[in-house]
Amino acid sequence: MNVTITGASGFIGRKLAHRLLAANSLIGSNGEASRVERLTLLDVIDPSAELAEDPRVTVVTGDITDRALLEKAIPVDTDSVFHLAAVVSAGAEEDFDLGMAVNLDAARAILDICRGHGTKPKLVFASSCAAFGGDMPDVIADMTARTPQTSYGTQKVIGELMVNDYSRKGFVDGRALRFPTVVVRPGKPNKAASTFASSIIREPLQGDRAVCPVKPESRMFLASPRSIIENVVRAHNLTDTEWGPSREATLPGFCMTIQAMADALETVAGKTVSDRIDWEHDPFIQGIVDGWPPDFDTQKALSLGFVRDNSMEEIIRAFIEDELDGKIAG
Amino acid sequence: MNVTITGASGFIGRKLAHRLLAANSLIGSNGEASRVERLTLLDVIDPSAELAEDPRVTVVTGDITDRALLEKAIPVDTDSVFHLAAVVSAGAEEDFDLGMAVNLDAARAILDICRGHGTKPKLVFASSCAAFGGDMPDVIADMTARTPQTSYGTQKVIGELMVNDYSRKGFVDGRALRFPTVVVRPGKPNKAASTFASSIIREPLQGDRAVCPVKPESRMFLASPRSIIENVVRAHNLTDTEWGPSREATLPGFCMTIQAMADALETVAGKTVSDRIDWEHDPFIQGIVDGWPPDFDTQKALSLGFVRDNSMEEIIRAFIEDELDGKIAG
Repeated sequence: MNVTITGASGFIGRKLAHRLLAANSLIGSNGEASRVERLTLLDVIDPSAELAEDPRVTVVTGDITDRALLEKAIPVDTDSVFHLAAVVSAGAEEDFDLGMAVNLDAARAILDICRGHGTKPKLVFASSCAAFGGDMPDVIADMTARTPQTSYGTQKVIGELMVNDYSRKGFVDGRALRFPTVVVRPGKPNKAASTFASSIIREPLQGDRAVCPVKPESRMFLASPRSIIENVVRAHNLTDTEWGPSREATLPGFCMTIQAMADALETVAGKTVSDRIDWEHDPFIQGIVDGWPPDFDTQKALSLGFVRDNSMEEIIRAFIEDELDGKIAG
Repeated sequence: MNVTITGASGFIGRKLAHRLLAANSLIGSNGEASRVERLTLLDVIDPSAELAEDPRVTVVTGDITDRALLEKAIPVDTDSVFHLAAVVSAGAEEDFDLGMAVNLDAARAILDICRGHGTKPKLVFASSCAAFGGDMPDVIADMTARTPQTSYGTQKVIGELMVNDYSRKGFVDGRALRFPTVVVRPGKPNKAASTFASSIIREPLQGDRAVCPVKPESRMFLASPRSIIENVVRAHNLTDTEWGPSREATLPGFCMTIQAMADALETVAGKTVSDRIDWEHDPFIQGIVDGWPPDFDTQKALSLGFVRDNSMEEIIRAFIEDELDGKIAG
């Protein structure tokens, strides 16, 4: 199979690329497992040498708003596209036109390129729980209205709608997934309001202090990198019959308080580590977090067999294993 | 005030133009009533001589996908835009690119032109209950997910999302309204699957026979031309504070069986007239109608003071008065 990942140098894109190359098997449109013959990695940033050196990898570097570049990254023999590239929340809020160009127009261009090939390729589209916001019920269910409160969320919901309609028309075989907040992200904090959720686990484990700007009783809807990658591959591998007419789902996650996250850190790594969280309340961040959806019922995703993390402790242990070579700074 | 109507030669556009010129008063952004100084009518079809001859009317004729034409129709001193132009359901299904160009790209161009003016004009966007479909709950409420099953419905929901986000960003002062099926439409039947709902009232009143292709127990969600026009003007006149952050609403309508519609016709016009309905079942149309939303709870619109028709009898009498000069063919 010939596969393309957009946003391939992002945190999820990199992990997905490694996973696809290692497993070397995906379910094609015929419902049968096939080897990955070619993996095209599209991003503004070059992939790691390890990925670039794999003989199956083709690197396409550049701006996703460039139609010619997209056409190069998604040639006519493409079987599957994982469209992960996006301008994230704060970025799309700061630069409205950039958000529209990347999150809406590039998504539509990818759908149109796939349609033009006439081969109905599989397309996995990364959406977000930022689809929800504002006045919401206590539990967000599959049939709760998408009421995004950011341009990023708006553009993602528009992407979901296009994926559904292009799939209904038979132009692509699409699947749109709403990601929970992903913890524990490796690397540095970014500008997302949710970044502290990873920081308060990641930095203490590495011997650094981290600020938690929200109250311990604040709640977040979370999923681990491992479960996200597992579910992205599952979303691809399910047949169109298994998906049925509606091509969207909120991925399973777990809703937990920040206190429970800190408690899990103490359980796994001890009090010395969890004491490295500085509770410095920031009313601005608190306001944003309080506006997020309170809880989710992801019945559809669970019925389609998507996985849910078992516990915060398990997620922290996986982070230590995957990103810290098993070592905690004592 | 300087006002623009797109789709001004359509059935709703014409009625709205007459209404705005006759009432000669709209609530501006300052919350105060002002006279209509200029009414720009944009459509591919020229308006009636009666409208064109009004000294306040400016006619702009041409294709709404022409950006230069849109800019001409929405000059910098525009206070309000009523965006009614659309490729309807069957048209957008037959010609996907045309639907995307008119229903999505032109709506976005109008939003961008308004944004470019930097004056935050009012914008009333006509959406549709085609926003809903597929697997639905028994009652569609304000917080029910939009799950369109047509390209037309998809494009309309995308329009709603853009109206909300452009309003949140302060680019426009927008309002998106989901119209129920409008009965009784004047004129000839069109290609819409719902066209029979008007035909079975309109043709018998004029002495002609009409075919009803669905079972008497089939249900539809309906509103009259009078209530639609009233609500479109109300949507405009409500202040941004009254609308609040969410700029969308399903307009009130009433859900009734086709049998009850025929009974109302008999009550108003007699059995000779209602016997002009030929019940000729068409499984294809029945299938489409059965896929439409079963019932609606339009709590938000009602709390904002939008009106609902009192009865089918009242709607039929209004049609006889407005379109047939008060005369029924005996």
